[in-house]
Amino acid sequence: MAEEVSNKQVILKHYVTSYLKESDMELKNTTIKLNVPEGSNAMVLKNLFLSCDPYMRNRMKKFEGGYVESFTPGSPITGYGVAKVLESGDLNFQKGDLVLGRTGWEEYSIVTATPTLFKIRDKDVPLSYYTGILGMPGLTAYAGFYEVCSPKKGETVFVSAASGAVGQLVGQFAKMLGCYVVGSAGSKEKVDRLKSTFGFDEAFNYKEEQDLDAALKRHFPDGIDIYFENVGGKMLDAVLLNMKIHGRIAVCGMISQYNLEQTEGVHNLFCLISKRIRMEGFLVFDYYHLYPKYLEMIIPQIKAGKVVYVEDVAEGLESAPSALVGLFSGRNIGKQVVMVSRE
Amino acid sequence: MAEEVSNKQVILKHYVTSYLKESDMELKNTTIKLNVPEGSNAMVLKNLFLSCDPYMRNRMKKFEGGYVESFTPGSPITGYGVAKVLESGDLNFQKGDLVLGRTGWEEYSIVTATPTLFKIRDKDVPLSYYTGILGMPGLTAYAGFYEVCSPKKGETVFVSAASGAVGQLVGQFAKMLGCYVVGSAGSKEKVDRLKSTFGFDEAFNYKEEQDLDAALKRHFPDGIDIYFENVGGKMLDAVLLNMKIHGRIAVCGMISQYNLEQTEGVHNLFCLISKRIRMEGFLVFDYYHLYPKYLEMIIPQIKAGKVVYVEDVAEGLESAPSALVGLFSGRNIGKQVVMVSRE
Repeated sequence: MAEEVSNKQVILKHYVTSYLKESDMELKNTTIKLNVPEGSNAMVLKNLFLSCDPYMRNRMKKFEGGYVESFTPGSPITGYGVAKVLESGDLNFQKGDLVLGRTGWEEYSIVTATPTLFKIRDKDVPLSYYTGILGMPGLTAYAGFYEVCSPKKGETVFVSAASGAVGQLVGQFAKMLGCYVVGSAGSKEKVDRLKSTFGFDEAFNYKEEQDLDAALKRHFPDGIDIYFENVGGKMLDAVLLNMKIHGRIAVCGMISQYNLEQTEGVHNLFCLISKRIRMEGFLVFDYYHLYPKYLEMIIPQIKAGKVVYVEDVAEGLESAPSALVGLFSGRNIGKQVVMVSRE
Repeated sequence: MAEEVSNKQVILKHYVTSYLKESDMELKNTTIKLNVPEGSNAMVLKNLFLSCDPYMRNRMKKFEGGYVESFTPGSPITGYGVAKVLESGDLNFQKGDLVLGRTGWEEYSIVTATPTLFKIRDKDVPLSYYTGILGMPGLTAYAGFYEVCSPKKGETVFVSAASGAVGQLVGQFAKMLGCYVVGSAGSKEKVDRLKSTFGFDEAFNYKEEQDLDAALKRHFPDGIDIYFENVGGKMLDAVLLNMKIHGRIAVCGMISQYNLEQTEGVHNLFCLISKRIRMEGFLVFDYYHLYPKYLEMIIPQIKAGKVVYVEDVAEGLESAPSALVGLFSGRNIGKQVVMVSRE
């Protein structure tokens, strides 16, 4: 008989319709048998690092867009994570392997969708990076910038939520290509980091700008070629006024809107015509085939110190609800991760 | 000495900030000498047909988008038209030539920007067509559909303002390619024409739909691959909810917004991400190089009766202000033209 152990879980209590609060989730003490059911190809995972990502907010509502499934109230939240294989019914994995993929917000998970898991081979980098620069946010930045933005050397690039999991990388990729890059973020500390840590040419604190249009005109007197959109709402409206002719907007996220029951209206879409702007939404799912190529490019850059990555690591599953909620007020600096267990 | 003749003009009285009214323009009786100033390469034109186009509304405000110049209050309105050359200082044109290009809303114009004029060679079609199917709206439909929408046989296409100067052609082009095409328009007569004259598969009167989202779901139970956007506002919001994954929106115009001091907000832009939609604005100016190729394709189609074009011809310059205002309430059926003189 398999060992039965205690298994703390983070449960979604109900669908969330307005601002996400910690009390929309609860910690529950359960138990779990750490064995693969007879004849199954499932795996027993010990979760090490869990990724806090803005899109998860959309899984907490009855979401009509259909690109992600809603969570099930009463069940543990799921998301990307790094885990250790304790037992495997899938011949492609062995006990002791480290994997990246969808797992539960709990100490141990039994995962049946094993083909979606990716075996981590290069362990000579912080393991938590596989939830960030070496995981979904990293590939998002890479595909969004290189595949959607059609960037050219010398172009002007604006990134919102620029110190976040994706934004900090977009800025660095744009600098590597020889672009002029400006980022916005929500605190002085983040703005300082954009310039000192990530090498952005300029940065500003959007919370301190009375007039976002004026702020953008100050930093882009000749306009913006590329906008990497992470926030939506008022910032998008201001950006539209400042795009250059034939500019491109890669729409990665709209975090400012996810907690709103009625989203803000965007008023300046006529600029799409007058400036012949291409505005294109994308999801990282469509670019998974680029993941091996991306890892091959990025891991040497990390090891050579040419790309840096800042994480905000919350310790312990107990801190997970607060870490997730914090994303939407911008409390995190860098990629928000929850460390469930070091090994 | 050249003959001095009377020259009626349509003058813009002042910048217009809200709903355009006939009284924002006035008819003025002036005189003109029908000769080219000594040493100039200007041309004296007799205006035959003037084009009423929605973008002209944007030239009546102090417009910040910068893609077209604002009109000058106190001066005649200008726009696309078909005219006869009475005298030419430009060696590329001769007396008696028919030309298409920017001219004034008046009986006679002296035009200095002669390089922008196009000499009409095929006169075996209605001359007024050069303001429509053989002019700017025709090339707009052609470039917008083939170059921006990336259409494929069998795809589902929705066209708003579908019986208008551009829309009626987009629908016919889409049918020629083997797409399923639905159009919206603002009256029963227009809706009937969409199906009986232009061959749309289905059509609906947006003014009679309580719920645009429901109307679109009725006609596109599996969603829309391509939206050819002419109207903006609420229709765009409803379309976003009904686009298919990897759908395309070619943004040609937003006529519902041009008279509003504060444009309507668009709320469903998150769909750009969840459905990976490409939304791209375009202007016909960028596609002028395709004009000869377009004429070569379309003129035989017209002569063979394979493409039809419906015009709404207002008689006399006196009727021009009313014809232009009528565009914004959808009073016209088909391309709105003003016939200033038959020859």
